[in-house]
Amino acid sequence: MEQKPSSRPFDLLNDAINKEVLIVLKGDVSIRGTLKAFDAHMNIVLENAAELLNGDQKTKYGKLILRGDNILLISP
Amino acid sequence: MEQKPSSRPFDLLNDAINKEVLIVLKGDVSIRGTLKAFDAHMNIVLENAAELLNGDQKTKYGKLILRGDNILLISP
Amino acid sequence: MEQKPSSRPFDLLNDAINKEVLIVLKGDVSIRGTLKAFDAHMNIVLENAAELLNGDQKTKYGKLILRGDNILLISP
Amino acid sequence: MEQKPSSRPFDLLNDAINKEVLIVLKGDVSIRGTLKAFDAHMNIVLENAAELLNGDQKTKYGKLILRGDNILLISP
Amino acid sequence: MEQKPSSRPFDLLNDAINKEVLIVLKGDVSIRGTLKAFDAHMNIVLENAAELLNGDQKTKYGKLILRGDNILLISP
Amino acid sequence: MEQKPSSRPFDLLNDAINKEVLIVLKGDVSIRGTLKAFDAHMNIVLENAAELLNGDQKTKYGKLILRGDNILLISP
Amino acid sequence: MEQKPSSRPFDLLNDAINKEVLIVLKGDVSIRGTLKAFDAHMNIVLENAAELLNGDQKTKYGKLILRGDNILLISP
Repeated sequence: MEQKPSSRPFDLLNDAINKEVLIVLKGDVSIRGTLKAFDAHMNIVLENAAELLNGDQKTKYGKLILRGDNILLISP
Repeated sequence: MEQKPSSRPFDLLNDAINKEVLIVLKGDVSIRGTLKAFDAHMNIVLENAAELLNGDQKTKYGKLILRGDNILLISP
Repeated sequence: MEQKPSSRPFDLLNDAINKEVLIVLKGDVSIRGTLKAFDAHMNIVLENAAELLNGDQKTKYGKLILRGDNILLISP
Repeated sequence: MEQKPSSRPFDLLNDAINKEVLIVLKGDVSIRGTLKAFDAHMNIVLENAAELLNGDQKTKYGKLILRGDNILLISP
Repeated sequence: MEQKPSSRPFDLLNDAINKEVLIVLKGDVSIRGTLKAFDAHMNIVLENAAELLNGDQKTKYGKLILRGDNILLISP
Repeated sequence: MEQKPSSRPFDLLNDAINKEVLIVLKGDVSIRGTLKAFDAHMNIVLENAAELLNGDQKTKYGKLILRGDNILLISP
Repeated sequence: MEQKPSSRPFDLLNDAINKEVLIVLKGDVSIRGTLKAFDAHMNIVLENAAELLNGDQKTKYGKLILRGDNILLISP
């Protein structure tokens, strides 16, 4: 595979550290927040996060750990 | 990856020991309680825990073990 | 991680041997019974167990093996 | 862990060989039959088995293999 | 475990080679056909298979591969 | 196990290369197409594929990769 | 298996780098975008992506990471 290392999924996550991301979980839950950290299981730490319902903020969280297992997509 | 160790998901859990956390499980179950312990599977021990329904306490538990598999998010 | 071994999830299970526990499974099934044994997959043996429906006993079981996979939470 | 080997989940299964057991699968399927064998994945062989619907026998099976993955509980 | 090797789940499958079996999959799909082969994941090859709906044949298949993951039970 | 190698599930897939197959996925999705390749996870490559709805072609795909995880059955 | 390496599922993905793909996720979510990268778990990076609802663009994403676990099919 001739991909440059910088283009792989976890590199894109690394580039998004300290930036705002949108994460969609299984079960139609969307979370927006600042990406602070992740690990090899794609477990995610967000700060200043908010659960979104139809685009509106529903619940706010200072810090948040999301389990990688249940993540559908991440948009940096 | 240039993250400092202190920012990773399990470090954030470790920092939350003896503090109150909110945990959302699959199947729309929310639990609030004092984080007492966890292991590498993200199995969690809470004390003075309560299942929440629309923000109200539904069931109280002195101690509680939650399986990591079914955890959607943890908010320290 | 600076936790004392005695505070980890499986230690709490071990302390609950021969005591009554409440176990909530996926699919909204709750079981109460005396914890007799468990293994590393969190498979559980209960005695004098009863499935609960809205707090009432629905089905009684002398002995019961629960698969760890399907356990949401255990309250010792 | 100070449990005697005889109390573990797979030992209880072993003690139930040739006895009648009730098995509840995911998806609200209950099966009663004589336990003939099992393996390390908790795959189960039953004889003279019947699927139960509200306590009545719905479908009878001379022999039956159940996948361990989908088992919620086993009552010996 | 004092079981004779001939009684284990995969042995029962092996004995059913070239015989008719009924297989119930997750999602309420039942398939009847002649068992031709299987592997260690319980992936199954059937011949002259038919999907059943309320006991009637709905779709016929000359040959069929079923993924072991999604199998609830097999009745030889 | 006394099966000849030629009868195993992956051998049947290999024999179906360049032939038309019907694949049923979890969630009631059926796909018909020419089998071009597969790997050890049962990930599948189809050409000239079409998603079927009640036997009619709903969506056509020139090429298609299907994840093995979500495959219920394959009919060569 | 006599397949040429160029025909395997991950090779087809590699050939689709920098081209537009359609990805269908579990839970009836379809995403269209330019494939930029993937890894061995079939985690995917898309650019200029859009979630589709009945063929219309619903939500646009500059960049997107999709977890391989939840992918049903990919059409290059």
